[in-house]
Amino acid sequence: MSEDIFKKVISHAKEYGFIFQSSEIYDGLSAVYDYGQNGAELKNNIKQYWWKAMVQMNENIVGIDSAIFMHPTTWKASGHVDAFNDPLIDNKDSKKRYRADVLIEDYCAKIEAKIDKEVAKAAKRFGDAFDKNEFVSTNGRVVEYQNQINTILARMGKSLENNDLEDVKALIEELEIADPLTGSKNWTEVRQFNLMFGTKLGATADQAMDLYLRPETAQGIFLNYLNVQKTGRMKLPFGIAQIGKAFRNEIVARQFIFRQREFEQMEMQFFVKPGTELEWYEKWKETRIKWHKALGLGDDNYRFHDHEKLAHYANAAADIEFKFPFGFKELEGIHSRTDFDLKAHEQFSGKKIQYFDNETNESYVPYVVETSVGLDRMFLSIFSNSLKEEKLEDGSERVVLALPPALAPIKAAILPLVKKDGLPEFAEKIVKQLRLDYNVTYEEKDSIGKRYRRMDAIGTPFCITVDHDSLNDNSVTLRYRDTMEQKRVSIDELASIIDGVVNMKHLLNQN
Amino acid sequence: MSEDIFKKVISHAKEYGFIFQSSEIYDGLSAVYDYGQNGAELKNNIKQYWWKAMVQMNENIVGIDSAIFMHPTTWKASGHVDAFNDPLIDNKDSKKRYRADVLIEDYCAKIEAKIDKEVAKAAKRFGDAFDKNEFVSTNGRVVEYQNQINTILARMGKSLENNDLEDVKALIEELEIADPLTGSKNWTEVRQFNLMFGTKLGATADQAMDLYLRPETAQGIFLNYLNVQKTGRMKLPFGIAQIGKAFRNEIVARQFIFRQREFEQMEMQFFVKPGTELEWYEKWKETRIKWHKALGLGDDNYRFHDHEKLAHYANAAADIEFKFPFGFKELEGIHSRTDFDLKAHEQFSGKKIQYFDNETNESYVPYVVETSVGLDRMFLSIFSNSLKEEKLEDGSERVVLALPPALAPIKAAILPLVKKDGLPEFAEKIVKQLRLDYNVTYEEKDSIGKRYRRMDAIGTPFCITVDHDSLNDNSVTLRYRDTMEQKRVSIDELASIIDGVVNMKHLLNQN
Repeated sequence: MSEDIFKKVISHAKEYGFIFQSSEIYDGLSAVYDYGQNGAELKNNIKQYWWKAMVQMNENIVGIDSAIFMHPTTWKASGHVDAFNDPLIDNKDSKKRYRADVLIEDYCAKIEAKIDKEVAKAAKRFGDAFDKNEFVSTNGRVVEYQNQINTILARMGKSLENNDLEDVKALIEELEIADPLTGSKNWTEVRQFNLMFGTKLGATADQAMDLYLRPETAQGIFLNYLNVQKTGRMKLPFGIAQIGKAFRNEIVARQFIFRQREFEQMEMQFFVKPGTELEWYEKWKETRIKWHKALGLGDDNYRFHDHEKLAHYANAAADIEFKFPFGFKELEGIHSRTDFDLKAHEQFSGKKIQYFDNETNESYVPYVVETSVGLDRMFLSIFSNSLKEEKLEDGSERVVLALPPALAPIKAAILPLVKKDGLPEFAEKIVKQLRLDYNVTYEEKDSIGKRYRRMDAIGTPFCITVDHDSLNDNSVTLRYRDTMEQKRVSIDELASIIDGVVNMKHLLNQN
Repeated sequence: MSEDIFKKVISHAKEYGFIFQSSEIYDGLSAVYDYGQNGAELKNNIKQYWWKAMVQMNENIVGIDSAIFMHPTTWKASGHVDAFNDPLIDNKDSKKRYRADVLIEDYCAKIEAKIDKEVAKAAKRFGDAFDKNEFVSTNGRVVEYQNQINTILARMGKSLENNDLEDVKALIEELEIADPLTGSKNWTEVRQFNLMFGTKLGATADQAMDLYLRPETAQGIFLNYLNVQKTGRMKLPFGIAQIGKAFRNEIVARQFIFRQREFEQMEMQFFVKPGTELEWYEKWKETRIKWHKALGLGDDNYRFHDHEKLAHYANAAADIEFKFPFGFKELEGIHSRTDFDLKAHEQFSGKKIQYFDNETNESYVPYVVETSVGLDRMFLSIFSNSLKEEKLEDGSERVVLALPPALAPIKAAILPLVKKDGLPEFAEKIVKQLRLDYNVTYEEKDSIGKRYRRMDAIGTPFCITVDHDSLNDNSVTLRYRDTMEQKRVSIDELASIIDGVVNMKHLLNQN
């Protein structure tokens, strides 16, 4: 069912110029995507909504744009060189490579499926009297299954934490996990594989510098902390925001644009006085979920997931999860990162990275609260949630992309009813009047009904139809995307009606 | 003199948060830069000016956003794998590496300097009677120097064209060119060095795919031509625009952000019917220079440079050059690229990339006219041209960054005269009123004079000062950056006065 919806999302994204497989004419590049003519506009509008809400609306947040190339010691200090790994295992017969932890998790998922089967059977047997919680905690077989899962995952977690890769392999062998493609159990050792893409800077082979493509934009902010604080005369608390590309050589990259090897982040690092970070962490959690909910995709589609196990640099962390077609998944992370990063760069660079607090007359390394959105995920959340198939009163169906109007690629389509009698010229006059403020389009091909449907499918909030009466009374038919309501308005009113709906101000005002 | 100006540009860019050396705390990464809190805003505004002028204002141009990672065959087809090289030579004693062609050109520059010396001497000797053109074409010594230069450059050009690298080395030896650092003439062979950055995609060592970081954004447009044309139902002539990062492993990267290893391009490929391309080429030359001139940096600072020697893919090409502090240099290229790229991708992918023309009922590969701006160069052109030191009537000096108002990072600064008596609160009210539309800032530290100077230095078009009278009459002092004129206005008028100056509409309207 939801897999079916997801397939429709992917094909609609391609058919209407939102997202294409990268390098498709060369049979594509795995887990890399291009944004088409409508996708690029939608993506730009999401960026703008974030940038305006974070930078323009906050007196104490500024934005930067740091390079993808950074000095390699950055990633030594941040821990990415040593610890940004996936445990991989190869099957010697099939030559296929897998993530060892995913193989074990998939094994547990099969046991989980057995539990579900028992539950379904019992539910059928007991009917209304069935109490699932009681059944699961008392039924002997189910309890045993659950214990199996817990034991396996606990052992795997411990082994990975201790980098005891031999035990991870032993676990795979004890569980008799086979290559899902071939059934072979002939496995190599488990090895750690770093997820950063490497390249070489400089022409001289013996002097070339090993570089990484940044796996996150955050470090570009930390490295510029001192320059921004000093040249911008910033006082704590203050934030630095950035939108930019990041790269991860994912082994298992899937779910369309949800997990890509090249992706884009919108990150903000908020620098605070040590001891106040948890207060700010709570504040940013609330601020960020409000920003998402203002889009009107449905408050129930968002939830917090507080991390129980924290990364080595964090003293509190939560995800904002969104209900994607494939379930609730992370959309944004909010992390209280302590002074881990700035201290690490102090140590590796030998330079002091401190803030002089002239209220207390002391210097210290600020603490950091981070908010980090995956831009492509955000795109997918909005796109998939907005795609609707509607049954109309007359029995026909329509597909409408009910995007938040401020984010729609095209704000209005101007459509002459026929391609003659001066209607195109009149329509072009309206185009010229509106396009200085908004991205609008002109369409004259096909019947007016077909043109309406096409505009619905790409999420255009307004259609403006020019007919023969327009030439006499300067009025046009304005059609609303969501209600399909049509009303006659004067062309002088158009700009203000459209502005009242699509101006990003209205979204920002709800934050 | 102009070198002095250039130094001031670089230090002002750093001091006021426009451009920082990348990874500065790790002693920097050569030829890579980060945009600071004011630079990021200025850069975003330049992007917006380009995107709106190209995409929003043109019914037949759409924008896309393709990935940096592309299928490697792309670069085989485009010619970059085989021909995107620099000829390099190493000095065996110093272990330093040089571009062989640059060594030879520097040698010629020294002869050129001798000519200049002769000319200067003669000018002094003959005074007003001196005719430079006549002297240069008749003076025996000068003519001989000029012949030497011509002979050397002709031979080098021919050898490079024929990939006769042995002769390039022979030339260096015959001219007795020495390592500029050590004087050693002990050279290695000349070798071709490809300028693309390489990386590896995928986890399996034996299955990893060799990728390149794209050296230009244009190929991302060509690869998406079919998808965009079909899903967008585009009819010739039409354009596809894109803004994005590109990467070149330059040996000699210099002149600040003018030539970086990681840089950003704003490219548009305009697809036309074969035979009409030269007409469109002329049209785009005019359209593009008008776009630049609308910024008001001075029409004399722009000129065309028509290419005499054309690249293998072009049948006409010109640069729009700008007068940088270091002389006239390329800012934008306009190229009639024929069907070279699309045909090459047809050949290498085995897929038809054609347009069906339903007026003539024939299919053909479109011709392409490209407009390609270096975004960082554009930034530098605007920034360096706007930086002015002014002598004021009272004998004092000020530094003002007279940016085109629509591009200024901050549009208005709201300044309470003093930090008490309710003035900050009144000022904050104005901030809240304006910030939904524009990036504004609030400043209360230092004297009002100092605050004005700081806003001048980052190019803020308006300062709005709140004083004690403001509380009674709802009026403020509005100060104009360029004229320093101050006038009393009601706070109700502020939005429309500011909008009348900074709204990008006014720029677009001049295009």
